[in-house]
Amino acid sequence: MKAVEFTGDAVKLLDQSALPHAEQWLELKSPAEVASAIKEMKVRGAPAIGVAAAYAMAVSDKPEQDAELLKSSRPTAVDLSHAVDYVLDMLQKGKSAAEAAAQWDRMNEEKCDKLSGHGASLIDKGQIVLTHCNTGFIAANSYGTALGAIKRAHEQGKGISVYACETRPRLQGALTSWELLKAGVPHKVICDSAAGSLMSEIDLVMVGADRIASNGDTANKIGTYALSVLAKEHKVPFYVLAPIFSFDAGIKSGEEVTIEERDEKEVLELQGKRIYPEGTHARNPAFDITPAENITAFVNENGIFRSTGELWKSTKE
Amino acid sequence: MKAVEFTGDAVKLLDQSALPHAEQWLELKSPAEVASAIKEMKVRGAPAIGVAAAYAMAVSDKPEQDAELLKSSRPTAVDLSHAVDYVLDMLQKGKSAAEAAAQWDRMNEEKCDKLSGHGASLIDKGQIVLTHCNTGFIAANSYGTALGAIKRAHEQGKGISVYACETRPRLQGALTSWELLKAGVPHKVICDSAAGSLMSEIDLVMVGADRIASNGDTANKIGTYALSVLAKEHKVPFYVLAPIFSFDAGIKSGEEVTIEERDEKEVLELQGKRIYPEGTHARNPAFDITPAENITAFVNENGIFRSTGELWKSTKE
Repeated sequence: MKAVEFTGDAVKLLDQSALPHAEQWLELKSPAEVASAIKEMKVRGAPAIGVAAAYAMAVSDKPEQDAELLKSSRPTAVDLSHAVDYVLDMLQKGKSAAEAAAQWDRMNEEKCDKLSGHGASLIDKGQIVLTHCNTGFIAANSYGTALGAIKRAHEQGKGISVYACETRPRLQGALTSWELLKAGVPHKVICDSAAGSLMSEIDLVMVGADRIASNGDTANKIGTYALSVLAKEHKVPFYVLAPIFSFDAGIKSGEEVTIEERDEKEVLELQGKRIYPEGTHARNPAFDITPAENITAFVNENGIFRSTGELWKSTKE
Repeated sequence: MKAVEFTGDAVKLLDQSALPHAEQWLELKSPAEVASAIKEMKVRGAPAIGVAAAYAMAVSDKPEQDAELLKSSRPTAVDLSHAVDYVLDMLQKGKSAAEAAAQWDRMNEEKCDKLSGHGASLIDKGQIVLTHCNTGFIAANSYGTALGAIKRAHEQGKGISVYACETRPRLQGALTSWELLKAGVPHKVICDSAAGSLMSEIDLVMVGADRIASNGDTANKIGTYALSVLAKEHKVPFYVLAPIFSFDAGIKSGEEVTIEERDEKEVLELQGKRIYPEGTHARNPAFDITPAENITAFVNENGIFRSTGELWKSTKE
């Protein structure tokens, strides 16, 4: 089962905003519809957004213009830009956009599969892994990134278990739990604020990434930075798992990453119902930056890299 | 307006579980009813629990037995035990329980008022204060503790503003916002996980306490510990504001504090509706321990204390 597919004339998406309560599929017939679905987080997760945008280019009749529309739908994840640029490049080389997008999808799948294997090797028998947000098959349109490594370690019979941060405001922890239930991985959900006091029980932290800068600074779901500080305080290894598609050689550090601030209603309402008094306002940054020095190692399709220098060499292999 | 009152034959409570959506009052005519209200968090906040339990003793016909029932209703906050023991002690000295409870209520009010003044002196003009959970008049049955200091600084015309952590799972941030709206204090609510990346904008952190051990380790609402680690990382002062009623000379360190684990439904459901898949389980520790070394200063009715030694001297004044 893949969460993003191409039917020949539409981009077919598993609507993540309806999960885990309902499995609903959307068929989107224009780049504008796909851009809206990305904006509204009907498809989310950096690799999945990239694949959806690539396929959206296959239903475009004005590729240059639609490329810009798609790229601007969410500013933080870089896979999106990489995927769209890849399709544009292949178009110039005489390939069809549909072929190029399918190729991107396959490459992404293969990369995530390999990095899940490398990541699984970091998890020992019986260990407890903390993860944040959702980085599984719906987010990666593949085996997954951080959650891919966790599922792989489970399949290897290591007897691991997981704490999944609920990841307010949008509760992607519910998606992670839904996926771990399907995979039979023992786990419990925790409030994001409980990660601190539970850190003393946790053996390692694994998260994905939306954009990794040249110096290793990593943009990821809001709350990731706090987990990295807590992990450092407790000397718990903190791993970032992302395919090279999530690397941005064009920026020097996390300071150059645009952090998307989303509608305050995501915080103030739940399932359409207001949970705060009328008059209350909220800040709602969707991402934060984890500085490279808080990251024990990066895992990508080429292996495990404990320094930013090694990491960048690996992206050129 | 006080959130806990005594009518002569009942303990009258503003039902905090209905706030901020509705202002409902409960009239509880037995210690068992008050113990249930404490357990179900219809009354919450260490000082308010203490006052409610004291008044519950005034409707008891078997004080020794009801004292145990009340004390066991929530294990972490120590004000509860102190208040009940105070009434028992006064009963032995020939006072009525109603008189003793009213005296406890007045002492609590006076202490919180004084500590709010001391706390306000720590906030400079134009500063941004981060707070967690709810420590205002409903929690303290008085002017408040941490939120008391914040409101006082606002009334002094210091032009301050506040970030209020939403405080999952029970969203006491909504109570804080409700109270700050009433007081006209500029503020925004944030998800607990956003405190990390916003720490660079924050000038100081102010929280309450449920129990302070002899060495200064402080039990408070889950998430407090993580904030203390983040504040330390960013060299942001971290203040604990609590009347001496919250001090427990009977324990050496935070390790001796019983951390209440509450029903997983608090995490998995919201307003009675399940937000996680069937089959998902959760951990739900209600409190955590902030080690004394993460606390810049303690504020109580006697002043501001930057070392545990000074602090304990102050509790004997």
